[in-house]
Amino acid sequence: MGQSLGKASVRPERPVYILNSASVVGTKEAQGPLGLLFDQTGEDDMFGCATWEEAESKLQKDAVNLALEKAGVSPEDISFLFAGDLLGQSIATSFGISSYNIPLFGVYGACSTCGESLALGTLSIAGDFAERVVCVTSSHFASAEKEFRFPLEYGNQRPLSASWTVTGSGAFVLGDGQAADRMKADGKGRPRARITGLTVGKIVDYGLKDSMNMGACMAPAAASTLEQHFMDFDRRPEDYDKIITGDLGKVGQKVLIDLLREKGYDIFAQHMDCGIEIFDGDSQDTHAGGSGCGCSAVTLSAYILKQLEEGNWNRVLFLPTGALLSKTSFNEGKSVPGIAHGLVIERI
Amino acid sequence: MGQSLGKASVRPERPVYILNSASVVGTKEAQGPLGLLFDQTGEDDMFGCATWEEAESKLQKDAVNLALEKAGVSPEDISFLFAGDLLGQSIATSFGISSYNIPLFGVYGACSTCGESLALGTLSIAGDFAERVVCVTSSHFASAEKEFRFPLEYGNQRPLSASWTVTGSGAFVLGDGQAADRMKADGKGRPRARITGLTVGKIVDYGLKDSMNMGACMAPAAASTLEQHFMDFDRRPEDYDKIITGDLGKVGQKVLIDLLREKGYDIFAQHMDCGIEIFDGDSQDTHAGGSGCGCSAVTLSAYILKQLEEGNWNRVLFLPTGALLSKTSFNEGKSVPGIAHGLVIERI
Repeated sequence: MGQSLGKASVRPERPVYILNSASVVGTKEAQGPLGLLFDQTGEDDMFGCATWEEAESKLQKDAVNLALEKAGVSPEDISFLFAGDLLGQSIATSFGISSYNIPLFGVYGACSTCGESLALGTLSIAGDFAERVVCVTSSHFASAEKEFRFPLEYGNQRPLSASWTVTGSGAFVLGDGQAADRMKADGKGRPRARITGLTVGKIVDYGLKDSMNMGACMAPAAASTLEQHFMDFDRRPEDYDKIITGDLGKVGQKVLIDLLREKGYDIFAQHMDCGIEIFDGDSQDTHAGGSGCGCSAVTLSAYILKQLEEGNWNRVLFLPTGALLSKTSFNEGKSVPGIAHGLVIERI
Repeated sequence: MGQSLGKASVRPERPVYILNSASVVGTKEAQGPLGLLFDQTGEDDMFGCATWEEAESKLQKDAVNLALEKAGVSPEDISFLFAGDLLGQSIATSFGISSYNIPLFGVYGACSTCGESLALGTLSIAGDFAERVVCVTSSHFASAEKEFRFPLEYGNQRPLSASWTVTGSGAFVLGDGQAADRMKADGKGRPRARITGLTVGKIVDYGLKDSMNMGACMAPAAASTLEQHFMDFDRRPEDYDKIITGDLGKVGQKVLIDLLREKGYDIFAQHMDCGIEIFDGDSQDTHAGGSGCGCSAVTLSAYILKQLEEGNWNRVLFLPTGALLSKTSFNEGKSVPGIAHGLVIERI
């Protein structure tokens, strides 16, 4: 098969560029270690809206707007939007990006959604179906607590294995070689990075049921996708400067490293987790780390792509991780299956 | 751009076949006008499970199993699964298809999800990323009522504009020319139809807020996608034997036909709606018609593809329609935006 490697992986034959991107975050994220790197921060976490859900929609809208502006393009230049969030029926997305009037593919992969949207965006460019697309995902601490656990007013206690949903949205404008050339010719800067491969994840369910320990629930899925990726691309961990999971947190990180050692891969030296980077767990009381669709998305835009641009890293494997639970599935005693999608992102 | 027509439409250069498909439905659907055409019917709507959500997962699992069997392939032959449902965090999907171990793209477009999954599946075949993929969607009357309105035990009254969520799942095995040839060579029959074009829809919001009249909420989105489609493909309604919306029902059908007349297109002669076909509204007390992701999916598999196979129709435009609401957005007084994705399906 032309661009496919095995059944789960794709190595695009046409170049796929991240033309530009943007990150919008809440106050807690702005106070964290990556705080100064984000493009935009709300004055408070309502972002001038009446409800948490509207606030999350505003995050997506602002992130897309900023990403388009930074890439020097307008909504009319975009063929498709790949967008999603964590809320039931993805309403942050439905009410966040409708005003752009861009044909929409709604996606859902829990906190792996950033990876899923970038994977589908990459395929649409690599397949010559579009010159430019936008991929956007979001999460909001307050809307997520209400959706998955308890309203904030309940003052629920959280165990140390729990993660803290990131309030933030990251948007990425992907384009083909022609779009990249036009950007440079128009003096709109140069693309931030290239996407040179991807591995699509499967649902992996070890039967864990603790929604307050999602890192452990997702780690087996991350291990599965990583193993598949190494096989399909015939690579080893040392072929990457960093292997970056989305939101495993400190508990999940340990599980992932152990699981991969059993399979013959040691990623200890390369592993990084967006959830661990985005907060200072000790001073910010975020326990295991950050989580949510927004966590990996804003870290990719603000921090990871910057390292690639500055030449600190040459090639990373970006692997957003998702926990496939709902309030209903939790209340009905179901397990928390995981999924993770991997993208190879390289310095230009 | 190679295969793209305008910014919203794609005409695949490589052939994309519906190798085979399957439909699994509940008891009420089996008693309806299309009842005898469905592949499998549950003895009751629990499908041997303990909860409505598990029952819906079972529907997806059975539909995929049957579609693979009919196409003469196994899960290992499938590169990607494009799957979704109506429940919060798409849990019918997460627990329905994990055992197949196929790389998964979770999709959400409310009741348009069948169209979205087929569109993405088509792109992945047309882009040479996969030889075979599976697209599956489901809905279940009882899980949907609980998710969007009231639990059944509440005995809620429904206005005549309300629709009845279909209990059913439709699964489609798509493949490229090579997969179609292999199928014929192996004596596994011939493909059911070809997908020769698609138009991706935008969110359209006329500000309507009545979740008991979703047909009217979705009709503007259907009109928008149809107008875009006619322009991009330079076609008129009479270029299609049928133009088939997903679940507008009787109220939405009238709105759609009126809206398109204002834009200079008369689809009265060609229009058909899966929601109107699947139930006998008078004797089955389903009011405006059937709805849900499963409605268009099972009607496509059981009825529409059969008409194409038998040569009664040569070319149809299949346009599943979705209403982008949630319990939360409804309770917060938001409108019900719509979306619709169109696929050109032709007789082989």
